[in-house]
Amino acid sequence: MSEIRQDPTTREWVIIARERSKRPHDFVHTQAKPELPSFSPTCPFCPGNEAMTPPESFTLLDKQSKKWRIRVFPNHFPALTPEGSAGRREHDGFFLDMYGKGIHEVIVETPEHNAPLALADEDRLADLLLTYQKRYLALSEMPFLKLIIIFKNHGPSAGTSLEHPHSQLVGTPVVPRHIRIRHEIAVQYYDNTGRSLYSDLVNHELRVGERIVMDTDKFVVFHPFASHSPFETWIMPKSYRASFCNVSSDNIKSLAGVLHATLVKLHRGLNNPDYNFVIDTTPIGDENKDYYLWHMRIIPRLTEVAGFEIGSGIYINTALPEETAQFMREFKAQ
Amino acid sequence: MSEIRQDPTTREWVIIARERSKRPHDFVHTQAKPELPSFSPTCPFCPGNEAMTPPESFTLLDKQSKKWRIRVFPNHFPALTPEGSAGRREHDGFFLDMYGKGIHEVIVETPEHNAPLALADEDRLADLLLTYQKRYLALSEMPFLKLIIIFKNHGPSAGTSLEHPHSQLVGTPVVPRHIRIRHEIAVQYYDNTGRSLYSDLVNHELRVGERIVMDTDKFVVFHPFASHSPFETWIMPKSYRASFCNVSSDNIKSLAGVLHATLVKLHRGLNNPDYNFVIDTTPIGDENKDYYLWHMRIIPRLTEVAGFEIGSGIYINTALPEETAQFMREFKAQ
Repeated sequence: MSEIRQDPTTREWVIIARERSKRPHDFVHTQAKPELPSFSPTCPFCPGNEAMTPPESFTLLDKQSKKWRIRVFPNHFPALTPEGSAGRREHDGFFLDMYGKGIHEVIVETPEHNAPLALADEDRLADLLLTYQKRYLALSEMPFLKLIIIFKNHGPSAGTSLEHPHSQLVGTPVVPRHIRIRHEIAVQYYDNTGRSLYSDLVNHELRVGERIVMDTDKFVVFHPFASHSPFETWIMPKSYRASFCNVSSDNIKSLAGVLHATLVKLHRGLNNPDYNFVIDTTPIGDENKDYYLWHMRIIPRLTEVAGFEIGSGIYINTALPEETAQFMREFKAQ
Repeated sequence: MSEIRQDPTTREWVIIARERSKRPHDFVHTQAKPELPSFSPTCPFCPGNEAMTPPESFTLLDKQSKKWRIRVFPNHFPALTPEGSAGRREHDGFFLDMYGKGIHEVIVETPEHNAPLALADEDRLADLLLTYQKRYLALSEMPFLKLIIIFKNHGPSAGTSLEHPHSQLVGTPVVPRHIRIRHEIAVQYYDNTGRSLYSDLVNHELRVGERIVMDTDKFVVFHPFASHSPFETWIMPKSYRASFCNVSSDNIKSLAGVLHATLVKLHRGLNNPDYNFVIDTTPIGDENKDYYLWHMRIIPRLTEVAGFEIGSGIYINTALPEETAQFMREFKAQ
């Protein structure tokens, strides 16, 4: 029979549906994706087409060739822009709204149109993660920003329309309820136990072992007990840091190694699935709180959310995290 | 510039992204869906194949032909099943879980394999809605059920794998956080004002008018101020009922007319989009609370949730609800 599991970080329930459950290899993509060229003349992110995008806010140059390796610039179709006031407004005497004030940047990860991040080497990943951190630190000085979300959408079912490898950064003028709830739960746990829920979670996963994909000196990769969808993957640091912006450059290099190994396993093991990843970190100003621990969540987009999830908020996961973690742990990507 | 709007029923923020916004007709499906036969020999929901499903829990017969018009039975691949205890368990001394105890039924809406609900006449819809209500009333007697979600998934991107028109009912042994939060907000509003947030919302929408798709004697159809995605549509009753199970059969007939008109507009106006609908009602036992108002939410699946939504819980909607509502209000489906 099925099992209903609670995510301790959100107190949401997830149904692990054994009756309809699939084996890990049932999720391997069978359809090959179209081959891409290394350069596309109409792609705004390809070298030579820089004029098609807004001016850079940051560029990482290759030391030898002096050509760019990573470019960051405001999104040409931004969800949020820096103008206007961040004040709340009463709308028609009933609703609350505010200007779409914020930041929305694109981070082009590579000059090569067809070089997916999952196959990038550790150096390229370290450069990218350091770029994320640089932009976070620069933007977090802006007084109207309350939260910075760094994320990647790979493939059409993960919500991207441009195939050239890129990540995005959105800074919002509000802390959303979704984040507040996680932090309230972490604060309660901290007040009751004197420990961080997230550190206890990592330690518990290491002790039990069955959901671990990878265990290194500095990071643990695992499939959460109450995974919302098949192959949901968390990368968590072993050393305490509430915010991604405080991770040392040494640890960023270790993270690059772990992220590389994780993405390659997903790419080869599931045959280049669409996926999202997001860096979960504190709101701006809470970087030094003891109760939180920054982490990365990678969500392969293998199933669709349906009416039940929309109505109840309870996800139905058709894979057993212990089985998918074992599959990935044992999968040899090279 | 964009606008950030708060959903008063959840206090979640939604970004209405004007810079990247599309006009309503940009969402019209351009790819035709494959034609289906009226009978498929391998379909477990087609007449003659009844032995391929579990035995019925309810059947609606045609008065003349004595053949079934609607069949309800336990899902062959249930997310939840009635066995076991509904007690919480400590899992490995750290997590909470419980048996997957509950109810999961399939409601086959028609004997015809290729008769989409959006093109069903009002009588067929009234029969279906009355069937929903009958099953709700029968199942809500089960002491282990705390919430009943009735929903429909139409099309692969809405999460269905079987194309024969059907709805589903899932009864859960817990009230999820997602529902608790809506109800807490409604209770606070009620305590502060003495009125139902949902009734005030309907009245406000009627007063302002710009998001209304349809206004009838008994029901209002509108696109919410903080729609999470393009063409999100709510059907709300004008007369006060907290629970769908208490709607009179007369009102069910009116609802059938309104649902018919709404689904036909969506089907013709957007060229048969994939969609979900869900009936939002109270947890079992709260059917007579004054603070809530049952309603239907219809979510066409026109865009994908991406990394930003996963990380922040803030949805980016690329359409303006006032424009999509106008498009639908003025669209002549017949």
